[in-house]
Amino acid sequence: MEGNLLVAHGGGPTAVINSSLYGVITEAKKHAQIKGIYGARYGIEGVLKEEFIDLGREPQENIDLLPYTPASATGSCRRKLNDKDYPVLLEIFKKYNIRYFFYNGGNDSMDTCNKVALLARESGYDMKVIGIPKTIDNDLEFTDHCPGFGSAARYAAISAMELAKEVEALPIHVIVLEIMGRNAGWLAAATALAKTNTEAGPQLIYLPERPFNEEEFLEDVRMWHSKTKGVLVVASEGLVDANGVSIADTGLVDGFGHKVPGGVAQALSDKIINRLGIKSRAEKPGLLGRASIPMQSGIDREEAIGAGAFAVKSAVEGKTGFMAAIRRTSSKPYSYEFELVPLEKVANAERKFPLEWINERGNGIRKEFIDYCMPLIGAPLPQYAALSKISVPKL
Amino acid sequence: MEGNLLVAHGGGPTAVINSSLYGVITEAKKHAQIKGIYGARYGIEGVLKEEFIDLGREPQENIDLLPYTPASATGSCRRKLNDKDYPVLLEIFKKYNIRYFFYNGGNDSMDTCNKVALLARESGYDMKVIGIPKTIDNDLEFTDHCPGFGSAARYAAISAMELAKEVEALPIHVIVLEIMGRNAGWLAAATALAKTNTEAGPQLIYLPERPFNEEEFLEDVRMWHSKTKGVLVVASEGLVDANGVSIADTGLVDGFGHKVPGGVAQALSDKIINRLGIKSRAEKPGLLGRASIPMQSGIDREEAIGAGAFAVKSAVEGKTGFMAAIRRTSSKPYSYEFELVPLEKVANAERKFPLEWINERGNGIRKEFIDYCMPLIGAPLPQYAALSKISVPKL
Repeated sequence: MEGNLLVAHGGGPTAVINSSLYGVITEAKKHAQIKGIYGARYGIEGVLKEEFIDLGREPQENIDLLPYTPASATGSCRRKLNDKDYPVLLEIFKKYNIRYFFYNGGNDSMDTCNKVALLARESGYDMKVIGIPKTIDNDLEFTDHCPGFGSAARYAAISAMELAKEVEALPIHVIVLEIMGRNAGWLAAATALAKTNTEAGPQLIYLPERPFNEEEFLEDVRMWHSKTKGVLVVASEGLVDANGVSIADTGLVDGFGHKVPGGVAQALSDKIINRLGIKSRAEKPGLLGRASIPMQSGIDREEAIGAGAFAVKSAVEGKTGFMAAIRRTSSKPYSYEFELVPLEKVANAERKFPLEWINERGNGIRKEFIDYCMPLIGAPLPQYAALSKISVPKL
Repeated sequence: MEGNLLVAHGGGPTAVINSSLYGVITEAKKHAQIKGIYGARYGIEGVLKEEFIDLGREPQENIDLLPYTPASATGSCRRKLNDKDYPVLLEIFKKYNIRYFFYNGGNDSMDTCNKVALLARESGYDMKVIGIPKTIDNDLEFTDHCPGFGSAARYAAISAMELAKEVEALPIHVIVLEIMGRNAGWLAAATALAKTNTEAGPQLIYLPERPFNEEEFLEDVRMWHSKTKGVLVVASEGLVDANGVSIADTGLVDGFGHKVPGGVAQALSDKIINRLGIKSRAEKPGLLGRASIPMQSGIDREEAIGAGAFAVKSAVEGKTGFMAAIRRTSSKPYSYEFELVPLEKVANAERKFPLEWINERGNGIRKEFIDYCMPLIGAPLPQYAALSKISVPKL
């Protein structure tokens, strides 16, 4: 079917969402039936406002820089569509002869994508719709992992390595590192990759999948502090207590109706100071954890480009209503392939971190996750000098 | 004079303090009169406890990794010495036949270093003492800049570039980025290197050298928000009001008696939400800003190695009571040389960011600083895709 292609970004960017954009554009140019290659300005909002940019006419040197450009080059939004928006969307797709639509986003975006695909089909409008997964949170079901996760995991792991070295070198306080991840602890868990031995930091890692127990937490911090003096604690921004209440509730709600957690690290750090009398500080790199190009994962970039290209190929082959998922075919050595998963299965399903990969005490991560995650962060983690520290005999 | 060498780290590590350690060790091995090459465990505390490690016997592969290892490989501390400690130190130096002492630190450490040099001289103990500058804050006088600053400045600039792209791509809030720097705004100013044009983020940058005016701040945020929607604000952790009070006073004091500032970004972000009704979030990478090896500056690493080597060379030539300073000999192309500056001049002098490099409104940085700072951050800043955004005509 001859016509135009439209690609839109949904939700928070990742370090490789522009890599998927590169994959879409590059693959689209190979297919004569794809005429215009359009990008929606600021995601679905740009579609509703009919604000499209002509990516097919973009100079190649800009296209080539996309995989190394943070955030979203076309712009994104957090608008949650309501039932009235969908028929409007369909009319716009028809008006601009959009026959290939790609929505690059997370759970909410896959839901939107699914509804668009269904509506096009029901109304007899021939448009191929494929979702391209994207989330640092890694909380999409039916894909081994999501493009965007590997880079954010690399950022989390290297940040934890650096802070572990910091607190070991200057053991004057506890450091609490806050890591993103709305309701899923995948990213916070990735800091476990930083552990070089059982004593090394991060000594304590807390995920939102297990209710946070303040008393056990303080007991564990006190134990580690007496043992190693410098302690690195990692806390997912989404930590909740036994009643499901965020341990640092801001009361804010984002555009999709999700609560905005915030200040978890500061809240824990304050507890350490006030209840244990131990010096503590909190670090919260926040959005830097999803935007870092120096810590981008090479395999993540490759897969993100591949997912974009696979989505276009599939659509050209006549597929619609699917998400371009990643299937792991081997862990050692790591290999993968793309496959199509029905959007209706993926939409709004949230994949939690497996409870069996969390240790019994709920303060650490098991080896199964390390094996799962290590291939996804790309190049091996950096190697640091570990001095043998040969003592000069005391006189 | 034949004898042993001792090197100690003081205060917070930088991304290149281990590079200076590499420079000290490598240069020391060239001089036959230097017998043992010792490192103090945890800085001056290790000296007082006579806890030394034999760096001369460390395998070369560990030494070679030092310039790429974050934090301090020997350990550091924040202990402020009192008058009773100095005679104890001198006895220890004598006992271990330390004839070459290098203290790698900031203002407080240079003060300690000066007192040690004076005491040795007064008591007729032949020991050469040279300070090696180190601070991310860049607040040491009589040196063009400090090893450690260039890398932290690179981190600050790239972080600001990434967040500027983030908030431009998903303009749903203001982002307030907190940057380290106790009382000096050098590092926060380095985020100005991220600005690609007058409209691009960071739109507002606040340094501690100018009293923070909350009303003007809110006015400026409102103006930029109406203009660009996404706004990036950079705030130094050391921001103070007209009375010199931190705008986010924690009430905490560190080991040197300095107040610990904290939560400035969160405090400003809360003001934006509460007083302007604009969504806002705060990011505080904190210690990550001084520990990042992926964002280490190549020239900073080179200078840090050079400063360590120059200190040893100078001591072997008989110099004592000096700091190894950097003199800029040219800005374009950048070149430098090392020189010795008397420790008594440097000790406890604090170099503030020049007021004339801050704009009139107190919310931005002038070009003079960009020219000063750009050569220090090493490789050029990354280039991102800047799409030409050719509009598809509306139908």
